[in-house]
Amino acid sequence: MSNEQKPPDRPPEGGTHPPTGFHPDLVWREEVVGSKPGDRVVRIARHRYFQGLASGVLVPRPAATEPKSGTGRFLMKAKHFLVGQPISSAMESQERLNKFRALAVLSSDALSSVAYGTEAAMRTLILAGVGALAFTMPISIVIAILLIIVATSYQQTIQGYPGGGGSYIVAHENIGPVAGLTAAAALLVDYVLTVAVSVAAGVAALVSGFPPLLPYVVPISIGLVLLIAVLNLRGIRESGSIFAIPTYVFVFSILGLIGWALFRLSTGGIPYTPGPAGPRAGTETLTWFLVLSAFAKGCTAMTGTEAISNVVPVFEKPEIRNARITLGLMAGLLAVMFIGISFLASHIGIIPDPTEAETVLSQLTRLTVGDGSYYYLVTVSTTLILVLAANTSYASFPRLLYVMARDRYVPRWFGLRGDRLAFNIGILALTFFSCALLAIFGGNVERLLPLYAIGVFTGFTLSQAGMVRHWLRGTEANRKRKAAINGLGAVVTAVVAVVIAVTKFEEGAWMVILIAPCLIALFLAIHGHYLRIAKQLRTQAPVKPKGTPPLVLVPISSLSLVARQALAFAEDLSKRVVAIHVTSELSEAELLRSQWSEVVGEVPLVIIESPYRLLLQPLLAYVDAVREMDPDETIMVVLPEFIPRHWWENLLHNQTALRMKGALLFRSRVAVTSFPYQLEE
Amino acid sequence: MSNEQKPPDRPPEGGTHPPTGFHPDLVWREEVVGSKPGDRVVRIARHRYFQGLASGVLVPRPAATEPKSGTGRFLMKAKHFLVGQPISSAMESQERLNKFRALAVLSSDALSSVAYGTEAAMRTLILAGVGALAFTMPISIVIAILLIIVATSYQQTIQGYPGGGGSYIVAHENIGPVAGLTAAAALLVDYVLTVAVSVAAGVAALVSGFPPLLPYVVPISIGLVLLIAVLNLRGIRESGSIFAIPTYVFVFSILGLIGWALFRLSTGGIPYTPGPAGPRAGTETLTWFLVLSAFAKGCTAMTGTEAISNVVPVFEKPEIRNARITLGLMAGLLAVMFIGISFLASHIGIIPDPTEAETVLSQLTRLTVGDGSYYYLVTVSTTLILVLAANTSYASFPRLLYVMARDRYVPRWFGLRGDRLAFNIGILALTFFSCALLAIFGGNVERLLPLYAIGVFTGFTLSQAGMVRHWLRGTEANRKRKAAINGLGAVVTAVVAVVIAVTKFEEGAWMVILIAPCLIALFLAIHGHYLRIAKQLRTQAPVKPKGTPPLVLVPISSLSLVARQALAFAEDLSKRVVAIHVTSELSEAELLRSQWSEVVGEVPLVIIESPYRLLLQPLLAYVDAVREMDPDETIMVVLPEFIPRHWWENLLHNQTALRMKGALLFRSRVAVTSFPYQLEE
Repeated sequence: MSNEQKPPDRPPEGGTHPPTGFHPDLVWREEVVGSKPGDRVVRIARHRYFQGLASGVLVPRPAATEPKSGTGRFLMKAKHFLVGQPISSAMESQERLNKFRALAVLSSDALSSVAYGTEAAMRTLILAGVGALAFTMPISIVIAILLIIVATSYQQTIQGYPGGGGSYIVAHENIGPVAGLTAAAALLVDYVLTVAVSVAAGVAALVSGFPPLLPYVVPISIGLVLLIAVLNLRGIRESGSIFAIPTYVFVFSILGLIGWALFRLSTGGIPYTPGPAGPRAGTETLTWFLVLSAFAKGCTAMTGTEAISNVVPVFEKPEIRNARITLGLMAGLLAVMFIGISFLASHIGIIPDPTEAETVLSQLTRLTVGDGSYYYLVTVSTTLILVLAANTSYASFPRLLYVMARDRYVPRWFGLRGDRLAFNIGILALTFFSCALLAIFGGNVERLLPLYAIGVFTGFTLSQAGMVRHWLRGTEANRKRKAAINGLGAVVTAVVAVVIAVTKFEEGAWMVILIAPCLIALFLAIHGHYLRIAKQLRTQAPVKPKGTPPLVLVPISSLSLVARQALAFAEDLSKRVVAIHVTSELSEAELLRSQWSEVVGEVPLVIIESPYRLLLQPLLAYVDAVREMDPDETIMVVLPEFIPRHWWENLLHNQTALRMKGALLFRSRVAVTSFPYQLEE
Repeated sequence: MSNEQKPPDRPPEGGTHPPTGFHPDLVWREEVVGSKPGDRVVRIARHRYFQGLASGVLVPRPAATEPKSGTGRFLMKAKHFLVGQPISSAMESQERLNKFRALAVLSSDALSSVAYGTEAAMRTLILAGVGALAFTMPISIVIAILLIIVATSYQQTIQGYPGGGGSYIVAHENIGPVAGLTAAAALLVDYVLTVAVSVAAGVAALVSGFPPLLPYVVPISIGLVLLIAVLNLRGIRESGSIFAIPTYVFVFSILGLIGWALFRLSTGGIPYTPGPAGPRAGTETLTWFLVLSAFAKGCTAMTGTEAISNVVPVFEKPEIRNARITLGLMAGLLAVMFIGISFLASHIGIIPDPTEAETVLSQLTRLTVGDGSYYYLVTVSTTLILVLAANTSYASFPRLLYVMARDRYVPRWFGLRGDRLAFNIGILALTFFSCALLAIFGGNVERLLPLYAIGVFTGFTLSQAGMVRHWLRGTEANRKRKAAINGLGAVVTAVVAVVIAVTKFEEGAWMVILIAPCLIALFLAIHGHYLRIAKQLRTQAPVKPKGTPPLVLVPISSLSLVARQALAFAEDLSKRVVAIHVTSELSEAELLRSQWSEVVGEVPLVIIESPYRLLLQPLLAYVDAVREMDPDETIMVVLPEFIPRHWWENLLHNQTALRMKGALLFRSRVAVTSFPYQLEE
């Protein structure tokens, strides 16, 4: 056995390696095939931690990365139970979304807005009396046209930016970094709000059905966010499968409802009597501002339209085609459902319930299909899709941060993928911030809503303005027409953004307007930091070894085995070794010096007197003095470090090495080495 | 200037040192006195951090240990304001206590007990009716005799153990380690309780005078403990000066009270009418158990008797004589005050107030001197000395832990002295535990008292039993008589300890009886740990350098400047350097390999594929594989580490080096080197 483990005497074929028996590729044994000299040498590389050793690349076996302790194994199993087994990078393309799943994951935010879009516009219009509701249908048609324009624009963005476009990239590339960061800041804030608002709305619907749950609104909301987060940590494909059912149930139940209502209208009509509480006369006059305001409210139906263009690379190949089709499908479904509900509400003459006890959609459903099981299907699937709207943010937020990390505007770890190929840090950050919002605002939708939607329209505006420039710079045939469409979209979404900002300013929109510039400043500061470092790291000037080992300093407290081991190790490293002894009792230090040459030999001993019993500071001062004396010298400090058998044993030692390391870490030209105690037991 | 800093060309006179210009003693310049060759060489050693450089010992100048940053300077000034300027070890003998201060610091616990000792016995006796109070005087005399016996015994202990005796040392040395640790555990628990109980009693007295403070009992108590702790951190001498005034005011006001009362008794008597609420008939029969129980209650007056023998080295020289005189003074004062108060209370016929609204001492004072200013002097000084009784624990607890740390039963840092020569860690530990007790028990004296006193008597018993053995082993002339005195003391204190344990068991003494064995087991476990290590460190086998530098592993992520600097540094250290690159994308790794030989040269490159995007685990597995392959090899891992200019910049980096260090630290034969980024900016 020990014979087999002995490294080969002569170097294996090809490649340089150190002049000892150790082979960096972990070759344990070489065998010569054949018996004549010059026959082929086969490198047999066997280790339970690595395989493929002879190919030049080591591939860890499962044993290499498995936890060695019982606790570690338990934690690993718990993690695998929660988020699933790791997925290798090579499997990435298999983890992508087909159109069916993509529509479920990426459109729940947009599609869920038909549950409240029409109603939001109607509630504003009715302030000018029931007659003003006549504007519902024209406004809905304008929004639908706007939706088609925005969707068309984003379809073109997908083509121009197949790596994942979104407002940030388009604005950044075509207008400038600040425009891109503005879009990013607005969207990031909005994604956090989307999670908080949609989960809060879903929980509010749940609690209105089960009033005893009222005191637990915040814990339930946070629990749901954590559930969505865990599902997203399992990877986008698996969450797509889970979220598909409620999304499609919602879509088909709404389409069925519209179809059935149209059939009943065509065969005799749906009778409707508004409740006695309904306002007969308006409290405001019907101004253009009111109509624009109703339009702006209805535009919340458009949030989430950009989601698909952010994440083109998660689609199965061909990504561009699939993403464009999915976006088209989503916009089409949204337009049909939105116009359908608006048409039916207008045509039947539904008036929004002023007590807000029942939604317009609920009234419409009950009038059409009665109180039966279909009514409950629509209600439950509406509640579910409101909660799932959060999931669209979970797809977009981490990807946006990934792109920003690539551009070095946010910390690098937002660009790392977890072992399920998800962007874990982004998912955790979104979870943290949305749970914090839910906790701060007590899970109250009303207080969160004013902060919402302004970011999306800022993003739309900047993105479409960017696309205008993109077309004008380009050479396409239809570029002027395309630019005109995007220009129109940019102007309208800008108007909507301004209207939202103005009408909701006092209710809370000011917070978003305040936070966004702070975020932009933070992104720019981070960017500056990375650029400064990158500039210095980029230098191609060759770095040559100095040819001499560094000066090695070894702080010692006695002539114990540990100290002598550390000194011997230092002497192996360099011919220039200095031992340092800090003492508050000179007599004891003189005893040490008297034994020194006999026990240690040639290494010089420096004694530093510390009358105030300080240990760390005199050592640091000595290191600093040496650094000053020779500005070209690299210094290595060897600190013996105790290896405990149990964690609590750390409490029994002075932790001087740890404090020393902490202090020395921030000194340039000082390398700090932890030399482990080599105890036998 | 730069010329002056140049190190000398030839080695300075005497002593070995490394063969370069650098001199370990920081000699910057040598001057030859005279002009002939062979004239005396004067080593001129000037550095703003060190002085006395030529004498073989470096002494840091103030600049060496001063904080370099503004925040650091502010913190240092704040610390000096709080606990004072550092005191050098050489000043130690000047920081010792004279008899005047020692009595104040070390006897406040014992002396304060006259405020409640007599009353505690009377309250038990009166359960058997007013007639039973006739036992007050006999019991007090027995306690006084017992006190004299115990004090005499401890005076002999001081002689036998001038390094600081106390129950732990005496029991440890004469009976055995477990007896010593039992005494130590009992005393440590008792010291914590003393602080909590005495501060709570003082605050209770304060609050009964100012009822609005009632809701703030716990914060006030903890504030007082912190104040006493800070004063003790300033050093024992300074706290002695501060505590002297209230102690002596208390002693002289009580002695004056007794004298004046005796004078009035001798000139006509002091009239007394018990309150109407006073019980005329007892509820229990007068049994020996009741008398013993009253005796046990009165014995609380003896807590703190051992304090002086614990801390003999804090006395001015001659320590033994001064400590014995102080102990004699304390016992004499205590006996006189205790007997005096008991005599007066019995003679006047004072009956303890059953509502506990007024103490016996307060009744006695009011009867003797009326409600005037002298009454308030006694009351206020009594309150103060009750609080200051905590200070006796602050003198004893850290010293006991220091002795135990020397014997390796508690972590080593209890043996370190702070920059004011105080045992800071012990002071902080006592503060922490007593504040925790106050917080848990809500600052309530009644709930804390049953836990109290059992430890002191356990300590007395073990200490005196130890002294019996000490005398019997010795050769002194009077050893049999001395042993008999100690034996009597041991038996009586053992009886008292048992009586306290039995009568107070259900009220809380069980906690102490439960905690003590746990503490002893902990001490023994710690001892075993230190012994195991010491055994291995003691080996005198010479440790020789291996003659070859270690195998150096350098994890790299790219061919950046940092990576190349780290590789060059590694090449300076050893001829056997291996670079390791972990990647999840083989194509990128192959690009690295293709540039490798041109940019880096001879260092072999190992590529490890990590399909699950793990970085740390494959590296650790590689290190483990190399360790396994050659069990004699020392491995050094060089980790490039980023030096941030601001702390927040740490957030922008992956902290891989930090996690790597944490993981590698617990592997034997692996030295971990932090190599700092050498960025210019």
